[in-house]
Amino acid sequence: MPSASDRLCVVLVGASNPLNIGAAARAMSNFGFLRLRVVNPYDVAFREAKSAVGAASLLANAKEFKSLADAVADCTLVVGTSAVRHRELQHRLRRLEYGARLIRKELATGRVALVFGPERTGLSNDDLSYCHWLMNIPTREQHISMNLGQAVAVCLYELVRDAKKAAAAKETKEKRATAGEVERISDGLLEALQRSGYVKPIAATSTEERVRRMVRRLSLSSPDAELWLGMFRQILWKMKADPKGKE
Amino acid sequence: MPSASDRLCVVLVGASNPLNIGAAARAMSNFGFLRLRVVNPYDVAFREAKSAVGAASLLANAKEFKSLADAVADCTLVVGTSAVRHRELQHRLRRLEYGARLIRKELATGRVALVFGPERTGLSNDDLSYCHWLMNIPTREQHISMNLGQAVAVCLYELVRDAKKAAAAKETKEKRATAGEVERISDGLLEALQRSGYVKPIAATSTEERVRRMVRRLSLSSPDAELWLGMFRQILWKMKADPKGKE
Repeated sequence: MPSASDRLCVVLVGASNPLNIGAAARAMSNFGFLRLRVVNPYDVAFREAKSAVGAASLLANAKEFKSLADAVADCTLVVGTSAVRHRELQHRLRRLEYGARLIRKELATGRVALVFGPERTGLSNDDLSYCHWLMNIPTREQHISMNLGQAVAVCLYELVRDAKKAAAAKETKEKRATAGEVERISDGLLEALQRSGYVKPIAATSTEERVRRMVRRLSLSSPDAELWLGMFRQILWKMKADPKGKE
Repeated sequence: MPSASDRLCVVLVGASNPLNIGAAARAMSNFGFLRLRVVNPYDVAFREAKSAVGAASLLANAKEFKSLADAVADCTLVVGTSAVRHRELQHRLRRLEYGARLIRKELATGRVALVFGPERTGLSNDDLSYCHWLMNIPTREQHISMNLGQAVAVCLYELVRDAKKAAAAKETKEKRATAGEVERISDGLLEALQRSGYVKPIAATSTEERVRRMVRRLSLSSPDAELWLGMFRQILWKMKADPKGKE
């Protein structure tokens, strides 16, 4: 049984620049969507696109169609992409963040076509009439039209993005330094400050407390604490060895 | 006071292809981030990049630096991008979905540099040592390395994406058809079915009910209901005018 990502087809209609088809293919490969369909590309040499780094086989397996109707015939949901915001659209227009949710739902059981139009003009009204609804990327009003390869990348990213997984992974948990390690650093720093004359005897206690708080604000990891400790030890060794540093 | 998007700088280190710098500039313009900084581009003619459709002024205003240290000197947070997953990274590595949240937080008050490395090699260990932490795009293991312009587009999209706004807008609410409109359509369809002989007298009631349920499953909008009604009226008019259709 095909997986959900296998049930998504990216359909490029009338793309005029082979580099853009190649860029679309690369983004598809990056995000794990390997089904490319091409309707009437202007350049029949698109399979040699140099921008398809790492996606040559995807491009070689791309299917060519004479019409959008043929290209989407086996799909249960056809979504057109459009930069247009307020044209008298005859279709529902959904923002990518929300549209992608509906696409993911459909992909659980059905086959979805995600359709991109020619670089300069976008999908024609005839093309759009084969779509169930339209989706746009939230670009700013002053510059809504995206490069084709970038638009494909952004749409596919939204389909694979997983905030929960990213938040769960968050970061490789680092072992925090223990209070004992932190205290040894405070001691090392304080000793160096005393030897250097930074700590005035009269203000010694308040300086000690300031230093202790400052070191704790660093919220060091255990390996970093060790690193700092080693540095202070070496600095102190040098200060003790140096006659001018001797008390 | 500069806005949050004004406080983000995209920093491209050692980019070798002017087309990629142009593509990055275009994506920046699309998503409303206008501060581009370039460290040692291989091609000094990058400002003429043809791929910067609509972003010529952004490219003309790009600042050039001799070192990454200079390029990020005024930033309170420096985030490096990396395709690498398991290299013995000396940095915390965060997925884009989560990293972007932290960047947005910092942008509320501070200036953030988002750093991208050279196309083929990515950021060097020296470059990385200027970064507070690293961020990666969740590409698939078999093909992790993205095109530079596409990587910039995806990262900036994540920074502007707004699921709440998209869900709130959802779709242009269409007026639903009233029960009366729907019933007139059922009547029109039924009359056409009776005249055509589709409805067998013996099964008339169950067919009527089936048709009524079917029409309601269409959950038509008010304008669509009117369209269907007009179609059936015309079809019935023709059937009545046609002698063979007469009872």
